[in-house]
Amino acid sequence: MATLRVPSPVPSPVEDAEHLRKACQGWGTDEKKVISIIAHRDAAQRQQIQKAYEELYKEKLSKRLESELTGHFEKAVYRWMFSPLDREAIIAKIALTKGLDYRVIIETSCINSSNHLLAVKQTYQNHYKHSLEEDVASDSNGDLRKFLVGLVSTYRYEGDEVDVRLAHSEANTLHDLINKKAFNHDEVIRILTTRSKSQLNATFNKYKDEHGVTILKDLKTANQDEFVSALRTAIRCIISPHKYYEKLLRTVLNKSESDEDTLTRVIVTRAEKDLKEIMTLFEKRANVSLEQAIGKHTSGHYKHFLLALVGN
Amino acid sequence: MATLRVPSPVPSPVEDAEHLRKACQGWGTDEKKVISIIAHRDAAQRQQIQKAYEELYKEKLSKRLESELTGHFEKAVYRWMFSPLDREAIIAKIALTKGLDYRVIIETSCINSSNHLLAVKQTYQNHYKHSLEEDVASDSNGDLRKFLVGLVSTYRYEGDEVDVRLAHSEANTLHDLINKKAFNHDEVIRILTTRSKSQLNATFNKYKDEHGVTILKDLKTANQDEFVSALRTAIRCIISPHKYYEKLLRTVLNKSESDEDTLTRVIVTRAEKDLKEIMTLFEKRANVSLEQAIGKHTSGHYKHFLLALVGN
Repeated sequence: MATLRVPSPVPSPVEDAEHLRKACQGWGTDEKKVISIIAHRDAAQRQQIQKAYEELYKEKLSKRLESELTGHFEKAVYRWMFSPLDREAIIAKIALTKGLDYRVIIETSCINSSNHLLAVKQTYQNHYKHSLEEDVASDSNGDLRKFLVGLVSTYRYEGDEVDVRLAHSEANTLHDLINKKAFNHDEVIRILTTRSKSQLNATFNKYKDEHGVTILKDLKTANQDEFVSALRTAIRCIISPHKYYEKLLRTVLNKSESDEDTLTRVIVTRAEKDLKEIMTLFEKRANVSLEQAIGKHTSGHYKHFLLALVGN
Repeated sequence: MATLRVPSPVPSPVEDAEHLRKACQGWGTDEKKVISIIAHRDAAQRQQIQKAYEELYKEKLSKRLESELTGHFEKAVYRWMFSPLDREAIIAKIALTKGLDYRVIIETSCINSSNHLLAVKQTYQNHYKHSLEEDVASDSNGDLRKFLVGLVSTYRYEGDEVDVRLAHSEANTLHDLINKKAFNHDEVIRILTTRSKSQLNATFNKYKDEHGVTILKDLKTANQDEFVSALRTAIRCIISPHKYYEKLLRTVLNKSESDEDTLTRVIVTRAEKDLKEIMTLFEKRANVSLEQAIGKHTSGHYKHFLLALVGN
């Protein structure tokens, strides 16, 4: 469930555009006003506001907001204003160009459905005149490249059918290779990048049933280098996106050094999807609500914006 | 241009279905009648005939034809009766299960547009409840597997934009690796499986301009094992599908041992697309028309069927 809260009745796009214009004019910006509008409109409504604003004032609202706002708040608003597909394409591009953040590429390729991933790739091509595949391949290397290119390329089967014998044999294959520390073996990459998510979940269950330990724990014990971390990230995204995001938020909000890009990404991309479920898991594990943790970890308009998005 | 010739006016699907029924009834089958109908109807018309036939006679026309016809003729008719997407999915499946024919997988992935390849993959999933990626991965191995999985997975950018500097640097990368006989190097696979076709054609041109020899010739001189043959097949499909198919027909029709599966595949898949251009190239290179070559190499109803499809 989404955490986004939209007032009822919602003002017209033209009214919203006029209020945003007023909030941006004169000395200083009325950030609270900006937040009170954009943090409470869904993706379609935000698109309509942007259209109305451009028609009324002959300038792009996103550009105007960029120039009025600063810091993490500006970045968060910038990401929020895009349509979901544009946002995912842009976040992927940033993850590739500003020092590879493989987690973003794995989230895009392992959490989205096959058709949604395809739509992100089409949007990416429209924006950058390159395929996501070739940019991932250019901006990574070694085993990690093989794995990431495999993940973004594949068009997984999405049916529920599971081949139990295959799950059994591939669980054994994975177990053997992990025990030999052959993490980068072609078979590991093949299984994780080509099998359907239902099939992989069956394989991970067999792994635990037959070897008494989860594949995630086995990998963690065996090695903690970047490649193995990437394998674990993908497996976690395939097993449970909610748990994956919950853990990511917990890590980010527990750290002393800040990682606002990740915090922003999770809140902004999930607020209209399933942030509610992620928040429930968070509170169970962290013994503190996500709102409280965000309130403690962030400040200023950035804080208020995130809190508005999580439904505060 | 297609070679398929449809009469004008064309009989109604019900008339065609009735004539086909008559041709299949009683002692012996009237193969000439069957050919005179199905070899002169386009994909949409053939679908309508099958629908009309099933409604009239409560049996599948394709099943009936399968049981009435024999040998290469039966196989060719069976392939022809499918819609183009179903046919490509089925031909890919056969290429994987009856002893890997990597050429078919390369044709599907390198000759089709990104969206057409995607549609084939969706059709494949509907038929087999597996992704093409995972079946290619299961049914091949080693370097060839890496290459084929990369080719079928990728959703290439299709724009005309070419990065000339990149073409230059990747031409040099390819040249260096081929000269070191490092054909299976990740960079070779990355470039061929992720770059757009326009970009790759620019790279191949640079290769020739700067090193005085085509990449195809360099590969042929260096090595002729299966993996290098697969690289050459993909490059030829990317440079010119027409020339690729022309050469394939020439090879098949020159051989003493027959390869009717390939002959059937090319004629049946291209008759409604671009067989005309392929035939023109063929006649130029072989000094004999494709009709003459087919007439010499094949016999019986199979021959008449193929000749009808090439526009005879």
